[in-house]
Amino acid sequence: MTNKIIKVAIVGAAGYTGEELIRLISGHPCLEIGCITSREYAGQHVASVFPRFSEWNLSFVEPNIDTIASSCELAFLCLPHGLAIEFAVPLSDKGVKIIDLSADFRLRDPEAYKHYYDLEHPASELLDTAVYGLPEKHRESIRSSSFVACPGCYPTSIILPVAPLLKAEVASPDDIIVCSMSGVSGAGKKVALPFLFSECRDSVRSYNIKAHRHIPEIEQELSDSSPHGTVGLTFIPHLIPINRGLHSTIILSPCRQNVTVDDIARIFHDHYGSEPFVRMLPCGSLADTKNVIYSNTCEIGFDFDPRTEKILLTSAIDNLTKGASGQAIQCLNIMYGLDEGTGLA
Amino acid sequence: MTNKIIKVAIVGAAGYTGEELIRLISGHPCLEIGCITSREYAGQHVASVFPRFSEWNLSFVEPNIDTIASSCELAFLCLPHGLAIEFAVPLSDKGVKIIDLSADFRLRDPEAYKHYYDLEHPASELLDTAVYGLPEKHRESIRSSSFVACPGCYPTSIILPVAPLLKAEVASPDDIIVCSMSGVSGAGKKVALPFLFSECRDSVRSYNIKAHRHIPEIEQELSDSSPHGTVGLTFIPHLIPINRGLHSTIILSPCRQNVTVDDIARIFHDHYGSEPFVRMLPCGSLADTKNVIYSNTCEIGFDFDPRTEKILLTSAIDNLTKGASGQAIQCLNIMYGLDEGTGLA
Amino acid sequence: MTNKIIKVAIVGAAGYTGEELIRLISGHPCLEIGCITSREYAGQHVASVFPRFSEWNLSFVEPNIDTIASSCELAFLCLPHGLAIEFAVPLSDKGVKIIDLSADFRLRDPEAYKHYYDLEHPASELLDTAVYGLPEKHRESIRSSSFVACPGCYPTSIILPVAPLLKAEVASPDDIIVCSMSGVSGAGKKVALPFLFSECRDSVRSYNIKAHRHIPEIEQELSDSSPHGTVGLTFIPHLIPINRGLHSTIILSPCRQNVTVDDIARIFHDHYGSEPFVRMLPCGSLADTKNVIYSNTCEIGFDFDPRTEKILLTSAIDNLTKGASGQAIQCLNIMYGLDEGTGLA
Amino acid sequence: MTNKIIKVAIVGAAGYTGEELIRLISGHPCLEIGCITSREYAGQHVASVFPRFSEWNLSFVEPNIDTIASSCELAFLCLPHGLAIEFAVPLSDKGVKIIDLSADFRLRDPEAYKHYYDLEHPASELLDTAVYGLPEKHRESIRSSSFVACPGCYPTSIILPVAPLLKAEVASPDDIIVCSMSGVSGAGKKVALPFLFSECRDSVRSYNIKAHRHIPEIEQELSDSSPHGTVGLTFIPHLIPINRGLHSTIILSPCRQNVTVDDIARIFHDHYGSEPFVRMLPCGSLADTKNVIYSNTCEIGFDFDPRTEKILLTSAIDNLTKGASGQAIQCLNIMYGLDEGTGLA
Repeated sequence: MTNKIIKVAIVGAAGYTGEELIRLISGHPCLEIGCITSREYAGQHVASVFPRFSEWNLSFVEPNIDTIASSCELAFLCLPHGLAIEFAVPLSDKGVKIIDLSADFRLRDPEAYKHYYDLEHPASELLDTAVYGLPEKHRESIRSSSFVACPGCYPTSIILPVAPLLKAEVASPDDIIVCSMSGVSGAGKKVALPFLFSECRDSVRSYNIKAHRHIPEIEQELSDSSPHGTVGLTFIPHLIPINRGLHSTIILSPCRQNVTVDDIARIFHDHYGSEPFVRMLPCGSLADTKNVIYSNTCEIGFDFDPRTEKILLTSAIDNLTKGASGQAIQCLNIMYGLDEGTGLA
Repeated sequence: MTNKIIKVAIVGAAGYTGEELIRLISGHPCLEIGCITSREYAGQHVASVFPRFSEWNLSFVEPNIDTIASSCELAFLCLPHGLAIEFAVPLSDKGVKIIDLSADFRLRDPEAYKHYYDLEHPASELLDTAVYGLPEKHRESIRSSSFVACPGCYPTSIILPVAPLLKAEVASPDDIIVCSMSGVSGAGKKVALPFLFSECRDSVRSYNIKAHRHIPEIEQELSDSSPHGTVGLTFIPHLIPINRGLHSTIILSPCRQNVTVDDIARIFHDHYGSEPFVRMLPCGSLADTKNVIYSNTCEIGFDFDPRTEKILLTSAIDNLTKGASGQAIQCLNIMYGLDEGTGLA
Repeated sequence: MTNKIIKVAIVGAAGYTGEELIRLISGHPCLEIGCITSREYAGQHVASVFPRFSEWNLSFVEPNIDTIASSCELAFLCLPHGLAIEFAVPLSDKGVKIIDLSADFRLRDPEAYKHYYDLEHPASELLDTAVYGLPEKHRESIRSSSFVACPGCYPTSIILPVAPLLKAEVASPDDIIVCSMSGVSGAGKKVALPFLFSECRDSVRSYNIKAHRHIPEIEQELSDSSPHGTVGLTFIPHLIPINRGLHSTIILSPCRQNVTVDDIARIFHDHYGSEPFVRMLPCGSLADTKNVIYSNTCEIGFDFDPRTEKILLTSAIDNLTKGASGQAIQCLNIMYGLDEGTGLA
Repeated sequence: MTNKIIKVAIVGAAGYTGEELIRLISGHPCLEIGCITSREYAGQHVASVFPRFSEWNLSFVEPNIDTIASSCELAFLCLPHGLAIEFAVPLSDKGVKIIDLSADFRLRDPEAYKHYYDLEHPASELLDTAVYGLPEKHRESIRSSSFVACPGCYPTSIILPVAPLLKAEVASPDDIIVCSMSGVSGAGKKVALPFLFSECRDSVRSYNIKAHRHIPEIEQELSDSSPHGTVGLTFIPHLIPINRGLHSTIILSPCRQNVTVDDIARIFHDHYGSEPFVRMLPCGSLADTKNVIYSNTCEIGFDFDPRTEKILLTSAIDNLTKGASGQAIQCLNIMYGLDEGTGLA
């Protein structure tokens, strides 16, 4: 494999997922940045936003379709939902492969998109084309796709531990309870009062508890894995004073008698025994964000509580890596037939 | 009311709850510290452990029963479970009123104590004497008691929001799900690897998910409030990188059709409308630790999610104040007929 | 003393110093809030900004001079520099006492104001009227004043330890080196990118190292204390990821041979031995923000290093309390002949 | 270059510098771990201490000289001072190359070692053999050495910015003032009260201000660079509540008239223009730990203040990377003729 042959663009590169992509690409032997775009910082050197990349000969450019298309064969879209569509469609038409980190192409159902994002999807015919970029679940589709919609950070931390237990019919899909805790970088680089240091540092709070936009993609993917269809999901996200890192605690009810931890261990081993980016902990051990920050790994713990008859799952990821940019690189590696861990050591 | 007339002792005063008690007593117009004890620091000035109290003419003494009994009329016990018993019984015998911040007298059932604390209770005959020191639930018993067992921090944050809904029979007692997040001071001043700054600062982790010692007192108190008896409780505590503060998210199922948020609002208003230390948020608002640190208030939010048909509760306290020492002072105020908020402004 | 008799206004109450003032006033037995103003939040209940004050029957009003003047006898101004003048002058003319927490009346020299604040002072005739509100230095002037300009947070942490050593002529005024570290709340409630949680949490950085606006007031007050006039000050402020708290490390050269730590100890004892809000540590002990947060105390440590022949000072305050609102209350207590610690326990 | 050919040992691998070395080696194409030792964890899998390395087939072994010597050609010593000597000498005798991360061989003067470490150096004849492992200063000596003593974290952050200005005779060596702020991981994995999360989280404090053990190596290296010999150094280290990261602010006096920022810029450009791990900021920009954590870069800012006539320097490193394990890898790369940045991207 010759180094640095795939030219990529990062559209909307001035935020945290853009920064993480630049960091990861800088250590990836086969990627070269064709352009990075930012409306706000066009014309400025990358170091004006990210001093740590001052050694790079790289400046932000205006997000122009032709400029992007002519400078890369694959574009990462790090844009707000709604705006991502405006780039994904014309770039895709010009033959540019797309890895979209926004929510615009994650849902197959345009009604769900409209309900949760309050927006009529203007390119709903593409929703079936895009592949949900969770490699552990859709690796083969990603391999042959040129349009990948990367999952949200919460969904990644939830689908990975839950899907195998639904598929194996040991856990009931009817009553899935999830409490998640996210670092503040998960809110993006949004200059707003609630995300000031002094507002966050002593704050633990849930938010959007009835209508978080990650709910429909979690439901979509878990329903997929559930032999008998739709799932009932209670999802309570929290913001806590860490920067990177996301932790989910998941409570499931067994859907049949006599589920044992050995059963669960076997199911997880079968699913994830050879996955490079899933770390199954021994039964009873508990996931910890400390073990995954700055890595692309999802750590998963499991246990069964005979007192309450609940299956207890914990998971931890870095929201910017496995929850966003690292997963995007993992998808790219698959799309190009590279070793899946390239640049993600 | 003449100032500074009640002499109190703090037994085991060198930890975080001891420090918080000294802080609160320093602002309380009717209390005077008779003695503070510490095996480790006996003979040393209080400032050797807590520099902020250097102005006080106060030194740690050996924890001797006679010394304590002769220097106070009420003793706060800030000792590990098991050890608290050894002081509570003889001090009580000598006529000293007791406010025990340990777990030793919270449970009425010695079997539960034995099961969770792995210890045969050596004074189980006193378990019925001690009053569970949650004023919002047991105010009248506290008023006439001379032996109060202060609740744990997690139980305070859970019992306050849940009990009224069980009592009013709008929430099912069968399937109570709680995810709680505690600041590290909740672990006490324990010099152990997992509580080092560098081990905690990027760490979000659950612990003791099947056997946390606060489970039986939550169950005891919620069963009390439940017309039809025992409750089913799933309790997942987490340690997160804040110092003070504790947040609980609670998921309940309605036990009858057509429960509305107005019903819930009314129930909470009836219970807590005139409580000085419960702040009911408007429906849909969510509790935040930021609003309660360094205060004795428990902030409670509630909502109903029609999509999942769950009642969603959030609560926040300062684990060292309403979760420990502030609640102890509140109990003392009640025991002595003082205004309940004295020294807790 | 009858309780709750002095009515006060807080002008510009929606920021962090306003919040701290409300907190302190709520525990002060002689103060009553006449009005709180906020352009942004006028008409809204105080709880819409500060949920922790939801129990109060208090709403923000428009910052109108007549409204303010008719509702109070003393106004705290928590406004940006430049704007404070616009309220201070007419309110003062109407007989309202002023405690200004901005920088507008701290400097006696209008040229210094113009140089550092880039603004011609429009009421420079009042600069001699206003008293610099550092009680440990100007107590008697404060007592008889009706117009107090509260010091900045950095100056408080620097003037208190340095002034006595200049006055006693043990330290040279020519080469005062100060490195200070402030919590992010010191930047105010400014919604700007550099103060986002994710931008601050792993960040240690100095700022404004050549032109910080607190320099002239430090120089003014230290020159005052220096028998031979002007001082040479190097002041390097840093922003670090704490919320409240400010620490200064100060390096001085002795201005005569044979300065001993005993000399220094004696000087400090003479100056601060009976000060309620200065905690002198024993020689060799070092100030720690942990010991002062949520308190009005300035903790000061000192030492002499024979190897380098430097006097080493450390100080710690809570930037919102002794560095702003607590100091304002301390000044008010002096102005009204109250015990200086009232409401600051 | 064939991959994975150099076998290395990590002696004392259970601490934070050991963990960082394992992390870096895992991404280094030419290194293979021969053994990791730990008295405390011998026999246990590496994941029992560092769950993030669970995929590795690697267990701690007893720190036995023969075991180590037979399993590697180079040993990293991550041991306390005093103990490192006991391994360095016999391993070196057996032909094992040494990169010592302790302080045992940093000082050429055994008297300084004795004074600061309170220990007669038992192998002082080796002090001249060991090379001080700061590549930007001693690259050529490192290249031909088989015994490298890696600098401390504070010295790295101070020597890099100061040495060029001494050498060029623009800054006076007589009065070098340094205030440094370190993350808590700099204290190592020491299970002691002052390093508990709850003791550190709101704490900003200096420590060891007269006798920090990094003083003599800073003085040694700066004297080296100073044409006229010895230096006068005031060094004030602080502990602040971050995990990784170290920031130094340095105040120098020019040693001749008319020093300009252009002079300084030119000197730095000449020294560091082609250094892979020094990032010189433009004049007036200030170093920030945020830009260097998890990287091997030292970021340096400089300015000249005409008001005070001081040269102001700021620097930032990750104390575990450029301040310890990353620097060790950089040295190894030089010793083996590899590209200096291998494994440090």
